[in-house]
Amino acid sequence: IADRDPTLIRQLLAPLHPADIADLIEQLSWDQQRLLAELDASLLTGEVLAEIGYDTRAGLFDLLETQQIVDALDGLDSDDKTMVVEELEPDVREAVLAAVSAEDREHLEASLAFEEETAGRLMQREFVAAPQFWTVGHTIDHMRLAGEELPDLFFEVFIVDEGFRPIGAVPVSRLMRSQRETPLSELMELAKITIRPEDDQEDAAYLFEKYHLISAPVVDDSGRLKGMLTVDDIVDVIQEENKEDLLALAGVNEAGLADTVWESVKSRAPWLLVNLGTAVLASLVIALFDQAIAQLVALAVLMPIVASMGGNAGTQSLAVAVRALATRDLTGANSLRFVWREAAAGLVNGVIFAVIMGIIAAVWFQEPDLGWVIAVAMVINLAIAGLAGVLVPLGLKHFGADPAVASSVFVTTVTDVVGFVVFLGLGALVLL
Amino acid sequence: IADRDPTLIRQLLAPLHPADIADLIEQLSWDQQRLLAELDASLLTGEVLAEIGYDTRAGLFDLLETQQIVDALDGLDSDDKTMVVEELEPDVREAVLAAVSAEDREHLEASLAFEEETAGRLMQREFVAAPQFWTVGHTIDHMRLAGEELPDLFFEVFIVDEGFRPIGAVPVSRLMRSQRETPLSELMELAKITIRPEDDQEDAAYLFEKYHLISAPVVDDSGRLKGMLTVDDIVDVIQEENKEDLLALAGVNEAGLADTVWESVKSRAPWLLVNLGTAVLASLVIALFDQAIAQLVALAVLMPIVASMGGNAGTQSLAVAVRALATRDLTGANSLRFVWREAAAGLVNGVIFAVIMGIIAAVWFQEPDLGWVIAVAMVINLAIAGLAGVLVPLGLKHFGADPAVASSVFVTTVTDVVGFVVFLGLGALVLL
Repeated sequence: IADRDPTLIRQLLAPLHPADIADLIEQLSWDQQRLLAELDASLLTGEVLAEIGYDTRAGLFDLLETQQIVDALDGLDSDDKTMVVEELEPDVREAVLAAVSAEDREHLEASLAFEEETAGRLMQREFVAAPQFWTVGHTIDHMRLAGEELPDLFFEVFIVDEGFRPIGAVPVSRLMRSQRETPLSELMELAKITIRPEDDQEDAAYLFEKYHLISAPVVDDSGRLKGMLTVDDIVDVIQEENKEDLLALAGVNEAGLADTVWESVKSRAPWLLVNLGTAVLASLVIALFDQAIAQLVALAVLMPIVASMGGNAGTQSLAVAVRALATRDLTGANSLRFVWREAAAGLVNGVIFAVIMGIIAAVWFQEPDLGWVIAVAMVINLAIAGLAGVLVPLGLKHFGADPAVASSVFVTTVTDVVGFVVFLGLGALVLL
Repeated sequence: IADRDPTLIRQLLAPLHPADIADLIEQLSWDQQRLLAELDASLLTGEVLAEIGYDTRAGLFDLLETQQIVDALDGLDSDDKTMVVEELEPDVREAVLAAVSAEDREHLEASLAFEEETAGRLMQREFVAAPQFWTVGHTIDHMRLAGEELPDLFFEVFIVDEGFRPIGAVPVSRLMRSQRETPLSELMELAKITIRPEDDQEDAAYLFEKYHLISAPVVDDSGRLKGMLTVDDIVDVIQEENKEDLLALAGVNEAGLADTVWESVKSRAPWLLVNLGTAVLASLVIALFDQAIAQLVALAVLMPIVASMGGNAGTQSLAVAVRALATRDLTGANSLRFVWREAAAGLVNGVIFAVIMGIIAAVWFQEPDLGWVIAVAMVINLAIAGLAGVLVPLGLKHFGADPAVASSVFVTTVTDVVGFVVFLGLGALVLL
């Protein structure tokens, strides 16, 4: 498609939603993206850039002039502006900040002063607020006058007191179906939730999810209304946090679609290194029993089964626990019950698979005692696996760490070491 | 708290949001929940029941009379009613359907006629629609008259043609800030997205996320507007689908907080059984080399390292691929590039860890050739792991299966078998 005809491209893209244009650009190879930016940078409007994945966007920024970025920013809401500007290289960011309007610069600098992944970075500075003694008619007239200054989309009018502190909110739909003379105070729902700019975006997302919020007020230290969060940004946060959890469980630090081979290697090598360490540890355990293995090779043949079943059972408990922690279903109050259930489930599964595997091993090697040894090792390892699968993430959380990161390495180390020690130890005792 | 004083409980719960009451009830033990339902079932309003997790809710339904459930349903929006009713046991559901109003019954039966996890089940039958020639003033007047009949919350007025087909939508906030005489046709955004009731809820969620939708029209076969989906329901869908992916990767079929030990065992045993099968397969591979192991126990000591590193690298690629498939970043167009990158990243990591592990093995066992053998086995296994991590989920998707389910078992089977065959095979060839 990109055979150097900008008008044709423009015609083709015209009827599409910015999100679709962004998808198309992401699918282009790097050279095609460069060609596109050279041919007609104005295709890369702010709306399209905001929809492009952040890794592709970083590449595109390198191709654009400062002025082109500044033009693209124009027309975006303040939260999208922040998102785009925070990703720029420091020197480009300086240049862009110098080129935007004084008001935008002030807002952007204030937003960037908050830490990454906080509500302050996500919040939109445009919102609609009214005092509670206004009537529906008064509020609508006021909005009609304000017109273009209002945010592009909003779902609630925040009700503020004399100190500009939010005391409630009226959904726009309720405003719309009420009589003009009704005072806002009659329609308003009391503000139970306010978010502070330094709150973690994950905590904000949890509140949105729990209370089915569409928008929420953000207040500063003195309680003054400074901005709002809206559910469309929160949907992105939820997806991002879920992605982080899933990747962290698998031992990947970060992953973008446009990552190069080298970036992929860097994001995975650290956990592979940790895994190598724990695998060597497990091997040292095996080496303790090298005499036993030399005498009875069946031990070497069967030992990976005990370790693998333990690792799997542990990962199952771990996934359930990490998920329950992320959705705040697992709390201090019910953690004991949860730990007990996981240990018990591990034990029951241990007994089931001990019977199956004990019979297989006894028949395979014509040695009933070997069946008993692997059966006992399985029961112990699967019960420990269930326990470790919950205690490791709970422990990490207790010490303030992310329960998803690193926990699967810890759990499989436990199940490997326990599995090898119990199976080989019992084997050496009973069979030799 | 539950020392049998319903008025006290009522006082304590009064200022709380239904979602908070639901949380408190979930934290109670089963006996406490029973006591609460006996003392004062009217505490369990529809709003509270709708917020409770579905497994706890199922238990509560057993405690309630049909009439109590019917009362609780009253006042819920049609989508929440459907959610509650679809979970009832068949006979209770019949009784409830018989007891509700004729209109509700018709709606509920229509919703339940759609398959589970489709847009039809999620959709709300209350919505606001207007013809495009209406003006802002006319629309607002109409809504004021309709008053209570309108849905509790809505974010867009759908614009319909003579056949009641949606042709666009006007956000309520835009309606609010426009002059009374403006016709809706000037404010409307053309409807680019319509959802059909039989669409999978995951597909609907994807559209909401991609286009940052707040609500979307649902149309029947003839294109007539039948209902709407709203973003708060979609947030729940996103969380549910993410949970399913994460649990599926870990080999858990389903997990609820209130699951009993027995339910937990049932949800995990099937995948443990599959894992046992593949672990036995890997053991059969090891058994092929029992002579070599008996002569050189170092092979048995080191072999789990090769398998474990391969399994880890494979899981990393798998998590990245499953996530990219879930967010539709991985498509037919770029899958070749993706496969190539994962294989290359596996190969590079393979080389890195081959060098490290080769040196460790050579020094540990004072045998340079052993170092070479494990190094070559690592390179091959990690490259294969990267490849399998992408090809397995892509293959499952190609054949219409869920790419998250079962894929981690397949991938670790590949890395176990390849790891053992290459390492033990090379070891037998070179070292004996």
